[in-house]
Amino acid sequence: LDDAIVSDGSDVLLFLSRARTYLVRAKAGEKFHTHKGFIDFDQVVGKRHGDVIHSSMGVPFALFKPTPYDYVRKALRATQIIYPKDVALIVAYSGIGPGSRVVEAGTGSGALTSALASSVQPNGRVYSYEVRKEFFARAAKNLARAGVDEYVVLRNADISQGISERGVDAVVLDLATPWLIVKEAHNALKGGGRLVAFSPTIEQVVKTVGAMDAGFVDVETIECFLRRMKVKAGSTRPEGVMRGHTGYISYGRKIFR
Amino acid sequence: LDDAIVSDGSDVLLFLSRARTYLVRAKAGEKFHTHKGFIDFDQVVGKRHGDVIHSSMGVPFALFKPTPYDYVRKALRATQIIYPKDVALIVAYSGIGPGSRVVEAGTGSGALTSALASSVQPNGRVYSYEVRKEFFARAAKNLARAGVDEYVVLRNADISQGISERGVDAVVLDLATPWLIVKEAHNALKGGGRLVAFSPTIEQVVKTVGAMDAGFVDVETIECFLRRMKVKAGSTRPEGVMRGHTGYISYGRKIFR
Amino acid sequence: LDDAIVSDGSDVLLFLSRARTYLVRAKAGEKFHTHKGFIDFDQVVGKRHGDVIHSSMGVPFALFKPTPYDYVRKALRATQIIYPKDVALIVAYSGIGPGSRVVEAGTGSGALTSALASSVQPNGRVYSYEVRKEFFARAAKNLARAGVDEYVVLRNADISQGISERGVDAVVLDLATPWLIVKEAHNALKGGGRLVAFSPTIEQVVKTVGAMDAGFVDVETIECFLRRMKVKAGSTRPEGVMRGHTGYISYGRKIFR
Amino acid sequence: LDDAIVSDGSDVLLFLSRARTYLVRAKAGEKFHTHKGFIDFDQVVGKRHGDVIHSSMGVPFALFKPTPYDYVRKALRATQIIYPKDVALIVAYSGIGPGSRVVEAGTGSGALTSALASSVQPNGRVYSYEVRKEFFARAAKNLARAGVDEYVVLRNADISQGISERGVDAVVLDLATPWLIVKEAHNALKGGGRLVAFSPTIEQVVKTVGAMDAGFVDVETIECFLRRMKVKAGSTRPEGVMRGHTGYISYGRKIFR
Repeated sequence: LDDAIVSDGSDVLLFLSRARTYLVRAKAGEKFHTHKGFIDFDQVVGKRHGDVIHSSMGVPFALFKPTPYDYVRKALRATQIIYPKDVALIVAYSGIGPGSRVVEAGTGSGALTSALASSVQPNGRVYSYEVRKEFFARAAKNLARAGVDEYVVLRNADISQGISERGVDAVVLDLATPWLIVKEAHNALKGGGRLVAFSPTIEQVVKTVGAMDAGFVDVETIECFLRRMKVKAGSTRPEGVMRGHTGYISYGRKIFR
Repeated sequence: LDDAIVSDGSDVLLFLSRARTYLVRAKAGEKFHTHKGFIDFDQVVGKRHGDVIHSSMGVPFALFKPTPYDYVRKALRATQIIYPKDVALIVAYSGIGPGSRVVEAGTGSGALTSALASSVQPNGRVYSYEVRKEFFARAAKNLARAGVDEYVVLRNADISQGISERGVDAVVLDLATPWLIVKEAHNALKGGGRLVAFSPTIEQVVKTVGAMDAGFVDVETIECFLRRMKVKAGSTRPEGVMRGHTGYISYGRKIFR
Repeated sequence: LDDAIVSDGSDVLLFLSRARTYLVRAKAGEKFHTHKGFIDFDQVVGKRHGDVIHSSMGVPFALFKPTPYDYVRKALRATQIIYPKDVALIVAYSGIGPGSRVVEAGTGSGALTSALASSVQPNGRVYSYEVRKEFFARAAKNLARAGVDEYVVLRNADISQGISERGVDAVVLDLATPWLIVKEAHNALKGGGRLVAFSPTIEQVVKTVGAMDAGFVDVETIECFLRRMKVKAGSTRPEGVMRGHTGYISYGRKIFR
Repeated sequence: LDDAIVSDGSDVLLFLSRARTYLVRAKAGEKFHTHKGFIDFDQVVGKRHGDVIHSSMGVPFALFKPTPYDYVRKALRATQIIYPKDVALIVAYSGIGPGSRVVEAGTGSGALTSALASSVQPNGRVYSYEVRKEFFARAAKNLARAGVDEYVVLRNADISQGISERGVDAVVLDLATPWLIVKEAHNALKGGGRLVAFSPTIEQVVKTVGAMDAGFVDVETIECFLRRMKVKAGSTRPEGVMRGHTGYISYGRKIFR
């Protein structure tokens, strides 16, 4: 259980509140400054994950071991539209698990890639396509830092030009024109394999589901609303602020035509 | 790729429509009768998963390799309130993956157990508690048939009397009085480990979140609505029938007090 | 306060439960049979609205004075897709009130017509267009029975062929092709008057809002979800059954081009 | 149709966008300054409601005749939690119309009062109770400016101390402790009259519905979600920003016990 201890030079997630977490390297002799005072890493090194320490202003911070998802979330740009609820449902509807082989496009900053990689490790693989050079480099770095890069094969290629893999368990699409990839995804999938597409607009959904008409059954499109509750005895209520829409998830299972 | 072929005596999922699927054993020389005509297994054996065959009435059925989840869904009772969307989010919020050790209660018919087991295989374990004898026996059978029993340790015990495990990554509760287990769950969890509780009523949520006040941070309660779309160019719309509520999901991360 | 008493020969709403209400004529000397026993009208006549009487089987029924809306709801066919929540929002977004002049199409069975008429009485008018002969006759009868016919001018005409009225406060459309009526509605409306369209599909919305681009500002499309709660101390929760979709409401205000 | 023209000294709503409207007095010879340039009222006076004029920077503004609701919305404080959707549903579920007599509490800034008054005019009345002196004065001013004060009787009194009216058609409660008023509301209502309560928290709902157990039937609690759509051919989707919760609406009909 050595990994229960924060060792010198290891990464740690400092948790102040849901909205305020800091993913930092704990180095003995150094300090980390926040708006709630500084954290003295001499106090952090040797503590357990789950311990609570206090800043110089006496404010409590919990120490957690970062998960792969924590790394990637930190690396996400604000423009990213995919949400944890969508990642959870996409992974679930793709039907994958440890050992699965998955094709994904586009990689983006690697958030969905990381979740897929976590699910298929240690024997499975994610083949992730990203045509945009600047995203490709950033994603590679993010996945390495998160420690899931060994389960991912990054391809700096345009997936609409072809998929190199065959017999894969799932193809997951998070790009602007998923309907253009449906035929090639069918070629790459094994019989019964799942195609999952995430799309913000209805017109994308109509085109993609239309393209799946031949070659897929069990085709369905869903939308997920997630609402937080403010829970407190005597004044419990749903939260007033809510995300109204992220995107639609369409999926189906390959048949041989 | 031998497993791409339906072999004699293996299980196969006959897919007619989302609402009509049959999980059967394909035995050469035998037949399976449906309201759309019978299926001749001599036609099925040797086909690929993903192939489409026709019943005696000429109705197409797709052949799929059953997933663990297909088995358990077939075994579920109608009284089961947990839905696939909830299973997906519970697995995601529990933060588990291949290799994780998870405590679960109650086992019920094993639907959630099966999903958890699929996620932690091959090195992880699910320790699943079920006090009700009749459920316990049924769950054991369902998990064996689904092929995930080797990743599950079933405990025919009342979890409120104590959890045998220590240092686990997550505790997942789907039972009537989760607040009574919070303290024991804290003992069983490693630092930073997640407690996840699924509860249909608001009063359960208020009590459980109240009990988590000491010993957990990052505590949140969410509700997920899932709506299907009817997608067809020219008449696209959300489906009129929708599940209005299944349950609330509450979760948090253990800190040392 | 004479109208507080159920008089001989007047209509009364017998309320058993939300799902079981009976709108009947209370005639002294007669009986009304239900699956919970019969109601003796000699017991009903002379009672107050709001009184509770008992059937021959001892089951309690409350006596209510029927509202216009009760009449029309009773006359509705199951195929009707518009719901009370939609009626409420359409009336609100149309900006009408006592004295307003409103054009409506199609009349259908008169449910929305009745709500509009109730809002504009006693000096306002609803001009309601219905091209289908069989609906027209039924709507006329329903509105008369509900006692709101004097506030409605029924037109057995195809509104796409033209609107006779000018300078109206609102045009409300509940028909299959609202986008074909937008130009004529603009002609009929006064400056600042509201166009409101109710449409089940997204394609209808896109066409209608597109047609409103010229001639309307403050154009918006909304969707309303309504969920019932099961309220009971100790087991409060949202209801499991929920209507997932009825239709979209689009509206805007006329400007002179 | 004289009221179709903006006359000198009358109020006008300058509409730039949904988020930018200005309710001002149009006085010949004066100007109104906005971040999009100034409006010259010499250009405005004599124009029709519905006309579009241009600011000094060439930006178009539509001219609309203010409705009572526009006045009150402008007077609302940001702390107000009630939304137009809620106002629409409360009015609808209260079953009121032209001629109805309604008791309301608390008045607040008068938004709901104004909507109720618009619905019951010209013969009905709203008896609105407000115990807080500072709100009372402000509400009186708002209702006068909106031109609906003649349909409202403002009572600067604590409604929990008693309701002066009897035989009213509806009692509408938008205050912190509706359950304390249920008995007195029952006294004030005519048989079959409606009690409607708007409450943000679940605990308020449980207490209020519990108190309605005796004396009311047809008791129901609902919640309404409203979502806007971004409608544009080729990129139609629901809006990302959505109000997750405002409050629950509980209602029922009085019976004589």
